[in-house]
Amino acid sequence: MGRVTERRKVLRIRDGAVSSRPDTLVAEEPLEIRLNGRPLAVTMRTPGDDFALAAGFLVSEGVLAAADDLRNIVYCAGATAEGSNTYNVVDVQTAAHVTVPDITLERNVYTTSSCGLCGKASLDAVRTTARHPIADSPPLRVDPELLAALPDRLRAAQRVFDRTGGLHAAALFDEHGELLDVREDVGRHNAVDKLVGRALQAGGLPLSRSVLLVSGRASFELAQKAVMAGVPMLAAVSAPSSLAVDLASETGLTLVGFLRGRSMNVYAGADRVAPRTAAARD
Amino acid sequence: MGRVTERRKVLRIRDGAVSSRPDTLVAEEPLEIRLNGRPLAVTMRTPGDDFALAAGFLVSEGVLAAADDLRNIVYCAGATAEGSNTYNVVDVQTAAHVTVPDITLERNVYTTSSCGLCGKASLDAVRTTARHPIADSPPLRVDPELLAALPDRLRAAQRVFDRTGGLHAAALFDEHGELLDVREDVGRHNAVDKLVGRALQAGGLPLSRSVLLVSGRASFELAQKAVMAGVPMLAAVSAPSSLAVDLASETGLTLVGFLRGRSMNVYAGADRVAPRTAAARD
Repeated sequence: MGRVTERRKVLRIRDGAVSSRPDTLVAEEPLEIRLNGRPLAVTMRTPGDDFALAAGFLVSEGVLAAADDLRNIVYCAGATAEGSNTYNVVDVQTAAHVTVPDITLERNVYTTSSCGLCGKASLDAVRTTARHPIADSPPLRVDPELLAALPDRLRAAQRVFDRTGGLHAAALFDEHGELLDVREDVGRHNAVDKLVGRALQAGGLPLSRSVLLVSGRASFELAQKAVMAGVPMLAAVSAPSSLAVDLASETGLTLVGFLRGRSMNVYAGADRVAPRTAAARD
Repeated sequence: MGRVTERRKVLRIRDGAVSSRPDTLVAEEPLEIRLNGRPLAVTMRTPGDDFALAAGFLVSEGVLAAADDLRNIVYCAGATAEGSNTYNVVDVQTAAHVTVPDITLERNVYTTSSCGLCGKASLDAVRTTARHPIADSPPLRVDPELLAALPDRLRAAQRVFDRTGGLHAAALFDEHGELLDVREDVGRHNAVDKLVGRALQAGGLPLSRSVLLVSGRASFELAQKAVMAGVPMLAAVSAPSSLAVDLASETGLTLVGFLRGRSMNVYAGADRVAPRTAAARD
């Protein structure tokens, strides 16, 4: 189901010495996501897990919140005018009880792959459309020492990165630090959508006992995806943006950044980051 | 013109020791780009250089190719229903002689900030709409030793990264390795759009004597932006994607990846990467 890597000939220059050899590259192809037959968004992604990607994208958009919201996902049949296959077009069909929000259709200009919901207004949108409010989820406490161990576990689980150096990774861990799932993609948002989509398909939403770890920065968009999936804690190896911190503060999401070695910064929801001794008193 | 950074209180954990202090974050805010009054796209960006960002985005879209294609760029006046200012909405007004391509308006669903032109069809679109074909530009040769020196010059010129760790950077160098311009943004594509937009506004397109260096990976989208601006050489500190290499091969763009230390991989257009001795024979 899709090529994750492709081979290309490359000219290598190492300290002035030139050689020619094949190189493994991460594959990047467009995926058009349709909702009940209507084109909604196109994202550049690493092929594979396309159905999960589409489902997860629609969780972020507030369209899907549980497995039974989903009637079917199919690749669109036929070939394009250029003769290429149509494995780059998927149609997500919702169950009869799902009301597709008008706003999703109205603002389809805005539902981009790097910015699902945009702007100050969208902070409101996330608050109002989140069907798994984090504030309603049972208390969760994670020891900072446990958090500090997660990036190494993520890297150990990454399969493609070692070969291509070109992928973002995202992983879900349980509160005990066990790896639940890991996905890689050329787009950081796609990696998260794939995780969330797989969880939805498995009946695992909301992810209220999970920590979402991302290999890069924590943007507004990733914080938003965490919130929409009911994830109470987002940890990033690199920096968060101001808007990600704002969203986390407003929704109750715990946001950890610069998770490196035994150090980290907690930008919001610090009550969930507690040493084991404190957690044991709960 | 826009806050590049913002301060937030953060809980720091360092080897078990916990402290509270203010932290500098990179600012991230949505920018809605309108074309002649019509909403076209929204991108999450670091505020600042908004007019250049909008202009550069429209170079990538094939709408603008020279300074006189641009009649005016304005912030939309008034406030939103939520009372926030409208410095996050810019309208680009084109000169009378500019024909706004129908395709841009038809596929506004697809003009996302992370994927300006999408899909196999877009490889054709880039070839056909590029108004500064790289193949027509005068020969350019750059010594690999000179290329190897550029990442350090980029890092030296980055201002915000040292404070926030949260920005992508892109820079333009001339063929002698002199830094022409550098921009930073939460979005890699925005940093490039800002560079290209500033060049357009200064009458500097096509950038046919320039090397574009990006701090991260080389995606299809960034290769496309280079091609549309007439940049003959794109160098990336990290990996390219397969589609970026395909586009480079088809358009004649020189694509260099993994530019680190004195090493690099040349994925396409290797004729422009030549040791000084060879270049001197030209």
